[in-house]
Amino acid sequence: MIRAVLLDLAGVVYDGDTPIPGAVAAVERLRKAGLPLRFVSNTTRSPRHRIIAQLGALGVEVADEELLTPARAAVEWLRRHGSRPHLLVHPDLEAEFSGLEGGKGRAVVVGDAGEAFDYASLNRAFRELVVGADFLALATNRTFKDADGELSLDAGAFVAALEFASRRSPVVLGKPSPDFFHSSLADSNCPAADAVMVGDDAESDIAGALSAGLGAALLVRTGKYRPDDETRFDPAPTAVVDDLAAATDWILKAPR
Amino acid sequence: MIRAVLLDLAGVVYDGDTPIPGAVAAVERLRKAGLPLRFVSNTTRSPRHRIIAQLGALGVEVADEELLTPARAAVEWLRRHGSRPHLLVHPDLEAEFSGLEGGKGRAVVVGDAGEAFDYASLNRAFRELVVGADFLALATNRTFKDADGELSLDAGAFVAALEFASRRSPVVLGKPSPDFFHSSLADSNCPAADAVMVGDDAESDIAGALSAGLGAALLVRTGKYRPDDETRFDPAPTAVVDDLAAATDWILKAPR
Repeated sequence: MIRAVLLDLAGVVYDGDTPIPGAVAAVERLRKAGLPLRFVSNTTRSPRHRIIAQLGALGVEVADEELLTPARAAVEWLRRHGSRPHLLVHPDLEAEFSGLEGGKGRAVVVGDAGEAFDYASLNRAFRELVVGADFLALATNRTFKDADGELSLDAGAFVAALEFASRRSPVVLGKPSPDFFHSSLADSNCPAADAVMVGDDAESDIAGALSAGLGAALLVRTGKYRPDDETRFDPAPTAVVDDLAAATDWILKAPR
Repeated sequence: MIRAVLLDLAGVVYDGDTPIPGAVAAVERLRKAGLPLRFVSNTTRSPRHRIIAQLGALGVEVADEELLTPARAAVEWLRRHGSRPHLLVHPDLEAEFSGLEGGKGRAVVVGDAGEAFDYASLNRAFRELVVGADFLALATNRTFKDADGELSLDAGAFVAALEFASRRSPVVLGKPSPDFFHSSLADSNCPAADAVMVGDDAESDIAGALSAGLGAALLVRTGKYRPDDETRFDPAPTAVVDDLAAATDWILKAPR
């Protein structure tokens, strides 16, 4: 029974600035079928308004409440805990954390800072952890498919570096955190068991969603997918499909 | 029975440019007792000649064959395997790897690159690993005591980042590699069981040496030592002593 659809963005809907063939029409078909859609992205290089604008430019209209990002989850965490952030994130993402300077606690927030990752910034974050700051990871993805088509280091590598040196474990805000999947469905009236996730990351999107209790998870062979990814993680995908268009066929054939 | 002594350098003999009180006289006493000494350092920021000059300036004369460094062990590994290095090391260390450009294989070599660690250099090393280069870690130390007296990120954090993203495990050249401890004793005619290690790193120096079969390992309360370090790793130190002077007392009282 499928009553809500969670879609990853990079590698599923688009690759860089280009829509994945058939993806825009597939989103349209899902909307026409009346299925609630949520866009759950672990991208932490772009602010929300840019992601929404980028989707709009491709022809995919997304309402603010339909887009779930780790930065939004982190801001909620910081508000709830009364903490101010020490940011190790992409400069473009910093504005999303404004207004939290008054917090009493202190939390290191690590995202995909890209070129902003350097020894000095990592060492400053490490020293905050040593003196007891909380440790928030926006995402722990190992790699992403870069603009040149090759895999590049994602936030998870730098989270692992800080984890190793500080012997501290992070609170993970984005996928594969079960909280992230659940909060994305919070206002959909759809229990997790009736939702399907579509993603290109067999670990974070697929094993993550199934571990969080989602009813199904479809691995697409686009984006960062590499042959045999479906055998590398547990739980394995419900199905492996060519792309979002094929995933949509699968979803629309499932009982509702 | 103690018939050879292995000494760590930073945090045991000196701290930055300053000798640790009593350390120079302690080395002198060990030499006078006729014990073979080996200096086994995981420092990968300084070339050998500078370490030897630095020790000389403090009043500790060290012969080339008495100093074991991970860079030397790595060069031997690369020669043995006919590999050329892709270096992610401190610029000052690069010259030690000259003459290896003709190797057929390819090996990523990660040391404590310090400020040379940045996103681009880490990502280049990661991409070499993805296409099958061997993976050599000069050291996997988590932290070192920096010039300002605080702990800073050491090579191990960046090795962990590459390990996480590439899902590859490195060959570790320096401490705590058993090969490194054994090769430091190779020309001493002293079996590992009759040697003692003195260090300030409870994990790499102490648990490492004992796991490699050394007869004893003394943890000093200088350098990066922090209270309770002796309880954090297995095996625990043979003894915890104030400093190298106290370690020397311990060694000279042991049967020979």
